[in-house]
Amino acid sequence: MFPKGFFAKGVAAGIKKVKGKKDLALFYSETPCTTVGMFTSNIVKAAPVLLSLKHLKARPDNIRAVIANAGCANACTGKKGIDDAGFCAETLAGMLGIQKQNVLVASTGVIGQFLPVYKILAGLEKLHFDVLKGKSDEVSAADAIMTTDTIRKVSTAAFVVDGKKINVWGCTKGAGMIHPSLVPSNKLHATMLAFILTDAGIERGALDSALKEGVEDSFNCVSVDGDTSTNDTVVVLANGLAGNKKIVNGSAGYRKFCEVLSEVCLDLAKMMARDGEGATKLVEVVVRNAKSKSDAKKIASTIATSPLFKTAIFGNDANWGRVLAAAGRAGVNFNPEKTSVFIGNILVEKNGMAVDFSEAIAKKALTKKEVKVTLDLNAGKQESRYYTCDLTFDYIKINASYRS
Amino acid sequence: MFPKGFFAKGVAAGIKKVKGKKDLALFYSETPCTTVGMFTSNIVKAAPVLLSLKHLKARPDNIRAVIANAGCANACTGKKGIDDAGFCAETLAGMLGIQKQNVLVASTGVIGQFLPVYKILAGLEKLHFDVLKGKSDEVSAADAIMTTDTIRKVSTAAFVVDGKKINVWGCTKGAGMIHPSLVPSNKLHATMLAFILTDAGIERGALDSALKEGVEDSFNCVSVDGDTSTNDTVVVLANGLAGNKKIVNGSAGYRKFCEVLSEVCLDLAKMMARDGEGATKLVEVVVRNAKSKSDAKKIASTIATSPLFKTAIFGNDANWGRVLAAAGRAGVNFNPEKTSVFIGNILVEKNGMAVDFSEAIAKKALTKKEVKVTLDLNAGKQESRYYTCDLTFDYIKINASYRS
Repeated sequence: MFPKGFFAKGVAAGIKKVKGKKDLALFYSETPCTTVGMFTSNIVKAAPVLLSLKHLKARPDNIRAVIANAGCANACTGKKGIDDAGFCAETLAGMLGIQKQNVLVASTGVIGQFLPVYKILAGLEKLHFDVLKGKSDEVSAADAIMTTDTIRKVSTAAFVVDGKKINVWGCTKGAGMIHPSLVPSNKLHATMLAFILTDAGIERGALDSALKEGVEDSFNCVSVDGDTSTNDTVVVLANGLAGNKKIVNGSAGYRKFCEVLSEVCLDLAKMMARDGEGATKLVEVVVRNAKSKSDAKKIASTIATSPLFKTAIFGNDANWGRVLAAAGRAGVNFNPEKTSVFIGNILVEKNGMAVDFSEAIAKKALTKKEVKVTLDLNAGKQESRYYTCDLTFDYIKINASYRS
Repeated sequence: MFPKGFFAKGVAAGIKKVKGKKDLALFYSETPCTTVGMFTSNIVKAAPVLLSLKHLKARPDNIRAVIANAGCANACTGKKGIDDAGFCAETLAGMLGIQKQNVLVASTGVIGQFLPVYKILAGLEKLHFDVLKGKSDEVSAADAIMTTDTIRKVSTAAFVVDGKKINVWGCTKGAGMIHPSLVPSNKLHATMLAFILTDAGIERGALDSALKEGVEDSFNCVSVDGDTSTNDTVVVLANGLAGNKKIVNGSAGYRKFCEVLSEVCLDLAKMMARDGEGATKLVEVVVRNAKSKSDAKKIASTIATSPLFKTAIFGNDANWGRVLAAAGRAGVNFNPEKTSVFIGNILVEKNGMAVDFSEAIAKKALTKKEVKVTLDLNAGKQESRYYTCDLTFDYIKINASYRS
């Protein structure tokens, strides 16, 4: 169920070039939300990221709305960019009878172009009337943030704590310039946009640590092209309308909340990889039996971003040498002669050397919609799972002329 | 002129799948060579790299020959791989009346397959007869090391020191899995193969530091796909037959030698980028006015390996936002609002924001065979130049089925 007290809707405001395409979303809560966010670590941060950071710092327990648009990233737009984003927030706040600082903003699209402010204001006016009429339509909101995405990305979950049913709903967008490196708002860092709404009552510190935990193995473990965006944003708004006793760190309710939030984050992150620009399949890179989790993640990330690995996967080619070659340049010390590589469940390399395997069976595993490649380091007990997609002709097609 | 006392030739030994294609080269010197090398920093090092390191350490002033083959990388082949490479070196040494340790080996091609030793021995026998007959043909040697390369890569230079003419000749191969990160043989590190021959008389320490200097701004500043190979090797053999007084560190002759060697290295490195798999153009990324050279290089390398940047260049799209976005994730602190971006000589971004520029003129600069993109950080005085190519449909085509 969509969380209590929330409104979400998307409209076509004319920001995208294609007429009639939804490109402006509003997420709104009847009551103040405890809100936490994680943002891109890119040094070049878009205006909406900078503004949202400021508002989150000022009103962490009193966020009421998030405006998100596609079609224009409002990045590399200087002071005017921040003023534009602020003007949108302020105007919406005026319509809703809240304050500018109660509003977060997020943008995705072309870099270096100014926001079409008046189109956005006209769109917000429509959305504001829908809020008044209670005409929520979360599916349209998820659609409005899409750019080169080909599928809508929504994930929901629910659980019971304290005898109360708690609902979690999240949506995300992202197919290209995807290699989030999200850091908490007090540190900064990721263009994927994800908005997660919950009616849980939860303390801010608990929400914050739950998000960090959730992001680490999901959004921060997904890459389409290795390019970390200027606009990446994940925010969770919790309005407490489920009526549960506030969830605090360390409680059983907290553990449950973490699990559910992590599930939603992972579900959304995998959708991004599966729908990566030009992708024909979802690829899961597992590095296991590493000395440390950070070792495992560095290697998994290097394999998952290797163009040679990704084109081999596109070609259904069990070219395990590219797995080892990528692992070897990850900056982690390991003994290649103790490794094994599996494609699906098929062992293709052992002790750093080829093993006899059926190319036909390997090809069969590679032609599936979901391909798992495992590198076993045989050096410890830690593992990391990284999600990516194949690198295809369509990736080139999409990106050789994105601006035009 | 080809350096005195050297022999170089390539033959078809049947290692490559295509019958009759040259795939085995021999470089040989009549007299002992002072030899230095730099090798891949990949943790997964091919057998020929490991063996050459050993031989270089044992006989740094007495290398006589280098065997290089294409079609099989002899990487991930365990102890058998090292034995195979050693057997080839030993057999050649026997034919030439030298010792196994006087011979270096280098391989490029598919990972995880054993060397076809008997084909190589038959090829070496032919080459050995050519040595005896003095039938050197350096062009065929440069051809024999090519894999997905479409053009032969040779560079020559000469200068006079001490009244003696000194000749430098180099060849290289490399179009894919190109992101060398070469380190001196005493540290280890990079599949590009480059062989540089000179008849200069030069002390080993001087040759060593000249190579390090030369590689830093050439082979270590070139990337086709960001993938550092298991086999990268650069070796310089100096046999002293020019008859000059030995060049020592710090002398005027040394400076001259460094300049010439650096030129040859840069010339060869640029050929690799221009001939990168699927490339339609050579792209030079200049990061200037950085605080430090290392800052400049980190940023230039990140831009040069960004798939989004490289596809935009393929599409002749002046998408400078991707330049800034890539720079921002390089792990270097800088102020985006002080930057400028140029495409060719056209200013397209200033102070972190778009400037008005003619898209037509920018497109014209982008459709050239050599494209220069400059990011000015306005933060210091250091610069770095990085060489890459565009990312195209043909890159995918070549790499989606390399093994088969």
